[in-house]
Amino acid sequence: MSFRSGRLEREMPEEVAKFISSLDVDLQIFDEVVLVNAAHLTSLERMGLMDSETLDRAIKALRSAHPSALPMTDYKLEDVHMVIEEYLKSAVPEAGENLALGKSRNDAVAAAIRLRLMRYIAELVSEGSCLAEALISKARDHAETVFPLFTHEQVAAPGTFGFVLTYHASRILKSLRILKSLYDDIAESPLGAGPVGGTSVPHDRSALSELLGFKGPLLNALEASSSRDFIITYLGALCRLSVALADLAEEIVRYVSMQLIEIGDEYCSTSSIMPHKRNPVVAEVARTIAAKALAGMTSFTAIITRRFGGYVLDLQESTRHIWHPSTAALDSMRVMKGMIAGMRVTDAAVRAVHPMSGITEFAALLALNRKMTFRRAHGIAARLSRLLASGAGISEVIAEGRALGLDDESLSALSDFLKPEKVVWSYKVKGSSHPDEVREACDLLMREVESLRSWAEAELEAREKVRTRLLGKA
Amino acid sequence: MSFRSGRLEREMPEEVAKFISSLDVDLQIFDEVVLVNAAHLTSLERMGLMDSETLDRAIKALRSAHPSALPMTDYKLEDVHMVIEEYLKSAVPEAGENLALGKSRNDAVAAAIRLRLMRYIAELVSEGSCLAEALISKARDHAETVFPLFTHEQVAAPGTFGFVLTYHASRILKSLRILKSLYDDIAESPLGAGPVGGTSVPHDRSALSELLGFKGPLLNALEASSSRDFIITYLGALCRLSVALADLAEEIVRYVSMQLIEIGDEYCSTSSIMPHKRNPVVAEVARTIAAKALAGMTSFTAIITRRFGGYVLDLQESTRHIWHPSTAALDSMRVMKGMIAGMRVTDAAVRAVHPMSGITEFAALLALNRKMTFRRAHGIAARLSRLLASGAGISEVIAEGRALGLDDESLSALSDFLKPEKVVWSYKVKGSSHPDEVREACDLLMREVESLRSWAEAELEAREKVRTRLLGKA
Amino acid sequence: MSFRSGRLEREMPEEVAKFISSLDVDLQIFDEVVLVNAAHLTSLERMGLMDSETLDRAIKALRSAHPSALPMTDYKLEDVHMVIEEYLKSAVPEAGENLALGKSRNDAVAAAIRLRLMRYIAELVSEGSCLAEALISKARDHAETVFPLFTHEQVAAPGTFGFVLTYHASRILKSLRILKSLYDDIAESPLGAGPVGGTSVPHDRSALSELLGFKGPLLNALEASSSRDFIITYLGALCRLSVALADLAEEIVRYVSMQLIEIGDEYCSTSSIMPHKRNPVVAEVARTIAAKALAGMTSFTAIITRRFGGYVLDLQESTRHIWHPSTAALDSMRVMKGMIAGMRVTDAAVRAVHPMSGITEFAALLALNRKMTFRRAHGIAARLSRLLASGAGISEVIAEGRALGLDDESLSALSDFLKPEKVVWSYKVKGSSHPDEVREACDLLMREVESLRSWAEAELEAREKVRTRLLGKA
Amino acid sequence: MSFRSGRLEREMPEEVAKFISSLDVDLQIFDEVVLVNAAHLTSLERMGLMDSETLDRAIKALRSAHPSALPMTDYKLEDVHMVIEEYLKSAVPEAGENLALGKSRNDAVAAAIRLRLMRYIAELVSEGSCLAEALISKARDHAETVFPLFTHEQVAAPGTFGFVLTYHASRILKSLRILKSLYDDIAESPLGAGPVGGTSVPHDRSALSELLGFKGPLLNALEASSSRDFIITYLGALCRLSVALADLAEEIVRYVSMQLIEIGDEYCSTSSIMPHKRNPVVAEVARTIAAKALAGMTSFTAIITRRFGGYVLDLQESTRHIWHPSTAALDSMRVMKGMIAGMRVTDAAVRAVHPMSGITEFAALLALNRKMTFRRAHGIAARLSRLLASGAGISEVIAEGRALGLDDESLSALSDFLKPEKVVWSYKVKGSSHPDEVREACDLLMREVESLRSWAEAELEAREKVRTRLLGKA
Repeated sequence: MSFRSGRLEREMPEEVAKFISSLDVDLQIFDEVVLVNAAHLTSLERMGLMDSETLDRAIKALRSAHPSALPMTDYKLEDVHMVIEEYLKSAVPEAGENLALGKSRNDAVAAAIRLRLMRYIAELVSEGSCLAEALISKARDHAETVFPLFTHEQVAAPGTFGFVLTYHASRILKSLRILKSLYDDIAESPLGAGPVGGTSVPHDRSALSELLGFKGPLLNALEASSSRDFIITYLGALCRLSVALADLAEEIVRYVSMQLIEIGDEYCSTSSIMPHKRNPVVAEVARTIAAKALAGMTSFTAIITRRFGGYVLDLQESTRHIWHPSTAALDSMRVMKGMIAGMRVTDAAVRAVHPMSGITEFAALLALNRKMTFRRAHGIAARLSRLLASGAGISEVIAEGRALGLDDESLSALSDFLKPEKVVWSYKVKGSSHPDEVREACDLLMREVESLRSWAEAELEAREKVRTRLLGKA
Repeated sequence: MSFRSGRLEREMPEEVAKFISSLDVDLQIFDEVVLVNAAHLTSLERMGLMDSETLDRAIKALRSAHPSALPMTDYKLEDVHMVIEEYLKSAVPEAGENLALGKSRNDAVAAAIRLRLMRYIAELVSEGSCLAEALISKARDHAETVFPLFTHEQVAAPGTFGFVLTYHASRILKSLRILKSLYDDIAESPLGAGPVGGTSVPHDRSALSELLGFKGPLLNALEASSSRDFIITYLGALCRLSVALADLAEEIVRYVSMQLIEIGDEYCSTSSIMPHKRNPVVAEVARTIAAKALAGMTSFTAIITRRFGGYVLDLQESTRHIWHPSTAALDSMRVMKGMIAGMRVTDAAVRAVHPMSGITEFAALLALNRKMTFRRAHGIAARLSRLLASGAGISEVIAEGRALGLDDESLSALSDFLKPEKVVWSYKVKGSSHPDEVREACDLLMREVESLRSWAEAELEAREKVRTRLLGKA
Repeated sequence: MSFRSGRLEREMPEEVAKFISSLDVDLQIFDEVVLVNAAHLTSLERMGLMDSETLDRAIKALRSAHPSALPMTDYKLEDVHMVIEEYLKSAVPEAGENLALGKSRNDAVAAAIRLRLMRYIAELVSEGSCLAEALISKARDHAETVFPLFTHEQVAAPGTFGFVLTYHASRILKSLRILKSLYDDIAESPLGAGPVGGTSVPHDRSALSELLGFKGPLLNALEASSSRDFIITYLGALCRLSVALADLAEEIVRYVSMQLIEIGDEYCSTSSIMPHKRNPVVAEVARTIAAKALAGMTSFTAIITRRFGGYVLDLQESTRHIWHPSTAALDSMRVMKGMIAGMRVTDAAVRAVHPMSGITEFAALLALNRKMTFRRAHGIAARLSRLLASGAGISEVIAEGRALGLDDESLSALSDFLKPEKVVWSYKVKGSSHPDEVREACDLLMREVESLRSWAEAELEAREKVRTRLLGKA
Repeated sequence: MSFRSGRLEREMPEEVAKFISSLDVDLQIFDEVVLVNAAHLTSLERMGLMDSETLDRAIKALRSAHPSALPMTDYKLEDVHMVIEEYLKSAVPEAGENLALGKSRNDAVAAAIRLRLMRYIAELVSEGSCLAEALISKARDHAETVFPLFTHEQVAAPGTFGFVLTYHASRILKSLRILKSLYDDIAESPLGAGPVGGTSVPHDRSALSELLGFKGPLLNALEASSSRDFIITYLGALCRLSVALADLAEEIVRYVSMQLIEIGDEYCSTSSIMPHKRNPVVAEVARTIAAKALAGMTSFTAIITRRFGGYVLDLQESTRHIWHPSTAALDSMRVMKGMIAGMRVTDAAVRAVHPMSGITEFAALLALNRKMTFRRAHGIAARLSRLLASGAGISEVIAEGRALGLDDESLSALSDFLKPEKVVWSYKVKGSSHPDEVREACDLLMREVESLRSWAEAELEAREKVRTRLLGKA
């Protein structure tokens, strides 16, 4: 790299250059670095440091910059910033040679990362809304489909499959809501901050911010050029989304394993040796993404913590690990959407709801009728459960109930509560698995889907406009 | 535990009971569990399932419940919920025996954890504002104090100490802002959701929510009783705050090590064997908290991911690790506040700003005057730097500048830019380390301090009112 | 603390002292610190720096030191080293005042941690051998018990329950073997290294090592006093053991959930609201320990990495998190041992082995007979599987087989391979789930149990002897 | 993929196929999968299931298989195993169509991963020995070079630079020793285990093991095909090595920052905006590798824990993250070796050793002479330190010493101990920074270098022989 030689006598050997280069991951921010450079040159022109004709030629050159045509594996260029500077120096020398006038790689890369994350957030919210919609749509179909609910991984109570699906949709939508709430924190412009403590080149930082579609400049120059705090909360929110997705995937693997649901052939593989196998491989891969997001968090946080002063190359290494979990979450949502749409509940599902699992509401009834305290009712129900668990028939259980002092009215209610399909209609609280509650939840959640989706679409459009404004029509 | 025997024949051996018990960490949520039970009983009374006299006696008993007087190490009681139920059963049997009427430990513990985190957030925001204020106050004193700025841990540019301090204050305040933004997500009430899919006991969930000072009920009963997603984003925000604090602590350790600043004796220890040592132990401990927060995130996320169905005991184990990083952050801020207040900049600080570190702005000047492109100016400045680095005097550097073709005007400017105290006044962009920018930043940041602090105080007061309303005057 | 005042003028406030103190976790190494001090004083006496009568009195005082009688919450004393020094200073002044003569807290605490880990390893190996024995013993009982084997969490092949249990035993034993292999790496003595680079007090480091039962001195003084590398590999091995234990616990939760096995009431809890529940809570808690070990690794490694120079207080904070996962693993093994012993296989287990899961071996047979390549046989078997999966009866499958060109001999074999109890006897390779292989594995694994156990017992005994030699009979 | 259609009706869409494919990382094990297939075919031939002529042709085809010529981005093939099967099916049909006869991807991929890790260990030990040798060689040159030793990041005692370097060499070598000790645990052959519980194809597992250069078969088929425990301890050892390397890199960054050492231009970069910068970028990148290894551990362990049954696709995802930290460690060692060789100590180093840092040994002297207890001597030395720290001259300190009651002999010794270059020769214990100790350490460590290196070379050679034996000359 040409400017190296002014300060350092000896060249970097190839293997050393490769060791410190970020070129292998810079593709993720290539477009954003181009935008940042376009904004920078526009600012120079506005300050009268570049004539408009030169700017036009430079913008045109930037517009046609494509990574595939640039030396993205020439490690001696260190990073994408230098690749683009070299490119522009040969295309429009006066522009290329002033790319670092009041702009450092420190503020430029921070700006590019922020723009990229803004895009990721909009994409995640957009894709996530579609997955949530698929869940809600399927939930509406299954508002009355009786399905076992589990605690401690044992059948706990009768419920509905629609209820389970709205549970997943709700969790995903809340994660998206949090991701969206981080947008403004990320959308602060570091540009114009210089390498560490400012610059004597009088860039108008507000104008730079506006050019790139940021919400406003991030004031403190040291923070602008070196803080990556915004990535930590982004990764935190990504972990949350990923856990919600992993739990959904886990349940699919398990329900398939228990034969409570079936998924389409397109989402299964078989075995190269065991011809009968039908493996839910998509869900298996999808359930690993929470661990991947966590590893991103670990790598990132462990690298950047106890940082001293302004920019250090550790920051470059920290960013290396934030893209993979982002795309993994996007891909998972894209793929799961279709899997959800094709999911079917089997006949075995209702059979899996053990009759004794309704006995909790029977115990509640005894207490609601004020015949006894709940703790006593619980004790009686426990004894009946033990009988049921041991395989006793209904008449035997009724007899035992009578022996335990239950009156006829209670015993008749007992028979009802041993029918799972009756229990789900007995729930009285908001948000239960009662079919009416499931339908209401679907309506509420769809409104959230629409709100999030229109936000995401508006932001993606705004990003597109920034691009057109800075670089012209493609 | 009495209700165990209805379903299970054999007792749990002591060592097994201890293994599955959460009593050792339940102290963290003791007060909150008491509040949740008070709200539950109030709800029962409103439904006509308990008379008001019984309620009064039960509330009185709850008000006087203190962990020190309860069997908090009787592991056979499993957890704080059972300890309180046993206590109330003996104090006011009709109340104690109905604590589980339409209330499970699943929704109750979720409610208690949320209330506790709401309190932690308010406390962190409150304490963090005080630390930020100490930084801003010190920054104001040092708005003009010349201090080295580092990149790559090497002196990079002249700056001001006030600028460095506002950088830390800004990062901390943004983390607090994010923590505050998570409040409403956490302040959803799980109460009334039942153990997994609702209950036939007609609790008014909105009323329960209001009684406890939540923002409203968390609708989906499965989510309410088993999702811990809100903790992940809380831990993400805590990681961010902790990284900001760890970086501040790291800089203190380093500046002390480089003798650029001094801290008070109260924050140092000496060695038991090396009598001359003066170790910045407080800052050493404080810089470890980001790793602790990260470990909390790891433990929590790795435990809860790929969860199947509703409540599992894994959730109990996951919560075990979220309190320590919360209190560690609180303690660090409390202790660092005083250390910051007593910090002094030494005479060595200004001497540490190598004259050559101003040469960047000299290069900028050459380009701003349009005498040459920045890349060429950078090349010339690099050659002069090499001379300066090798120990050459100013006259030698001037001579070399002349030989490289610089005119007299430029050479005279060069002399100025070799004086760090002049360079800091040359910065032209918003947010630089220029003294006027530092002062303006102090004003802006103090407004943020006040806004956050008044929010935190209002919330802590609101929490207090909830307590009084539910339990009466202490 | 008395020696503080020589160097530092102002006292540390109580809350600051608490912040930097390690007293809350020092109980873990109390006994070891006592031993280290005893060895140190013995060394002083041997150098002629203390008379033997003083030594005797000091040893006697150390022998009777009990944490409960010492000020273990007086945070101004910083740590256990100072608590013991203060205690000895008042009991035997000449000894107490020379505890730091050529001994720093840096080498002393490293020695104590190493001794404690040596003990943990021996205890883990001892306890783990017992758990493995319980598994092997149960495996022998079930060498012929047909049980489903899963891949991708779907039934994959017929197997035996004994085979599954030897799998778990083998994994646990290998983890113990690795832990044991780290013993010598840990058993290097840092004592006599001084605070960072040696000492002019001529301690005989080999003698000190021998006194404490180390294998020999850790030579480099900087490494001895500040490296914690040995803990990383210890935690790595602990993670491995914990993953093996978590997988065992997970399988128990699942097999119970699928009703393939039953576990004793002593290892279950019920629900406070759902009277019918029977929750495998012990296994639920046990399966979280891998995440806890991982969090210990994270916290530890993230704190200590990028360490500069010798001892820093960060090291104190790093150790804080290694004890919990160690005791969690010990407790899990102790509790699971009993749960394993009482485990029963249900009648449902054999029914869970879907007949089509034997078809892999039928396909193999076709290829072994060289009637066709395996890939072709696999294709035929896949078609038959599809029929079986759709609920077709055996005659229908035979008909389809004939239509696909299978001869009578093959068709007759097919019927056999649809009987799981026949398939397990067809396996031909070493280490399969064939009953004879299971029995042979039990023999091999028991030899490993015995070898590990006798090693652990010998080491624990050796530790005891070191104690008696240094401190006399208790 | 052809065999899919037998069992599953619908194709996998491209984006789904990509989602579940491991092809993007399978390059890491390409060579090993080829070897495994060669051994498998050899075993078939030995059982009489393939004639030797077919084997010869198949081996020849395998020998010429190169990833660049194969469809390694045809995601519908799922993974490298299918790519190679498809290739062989078209080259030598009878061989290709029998690749799954008694061999599953489950045991095959486990074998390939183990072989790859064996190679990594040998490479790490080989490369690490070279780095250690560079350190030792430099240490020998600097056995007498006075250099500051730090604790709590403050100057603590006079030492020698050679001592610091042997410290790093020793830590690295011990990590390598541990890596090597894991070799046999990894070198167990899973081949012949079948997909989960054995196979009726009578593979001779011992012969297969020998063919591939394993130490012997891993007996239990479930463990062989699904356990990844060996990777956890591998990653634990890699974390340890990486922490040792990160600490070395950190010290280089810091010593350069404090101008105590200089490193070659080839290992530095400058800034694109700040022409005077000389940044130790290689060391900056190198110090991040411990965090990367930790992230590998996190991702891996969090994915695999709580695994149920045999092979799950999660295992594929877990392996994705173990290669990067392995190559990062290799690259770091390769690059640092040269940086170490060119490192120079500056004149500032000896000046950085504050005279008061020798006072610990003066205090020791007072106690050794039995003039007072060490605690009293420490108090006196603390008072003198305070004077020295405040800038007092030697005569002032002597006067204060006299006032504190020191006799002439002691005062004369004091002057000596204030000369760092004298203090380093005063150390009396083994392993100190005394020049003679440094030289002895160099000798000892070099013997360890040679022992490790010859082991690594022998293993790499053995791997090569396995290749030649199985595939013939390339």
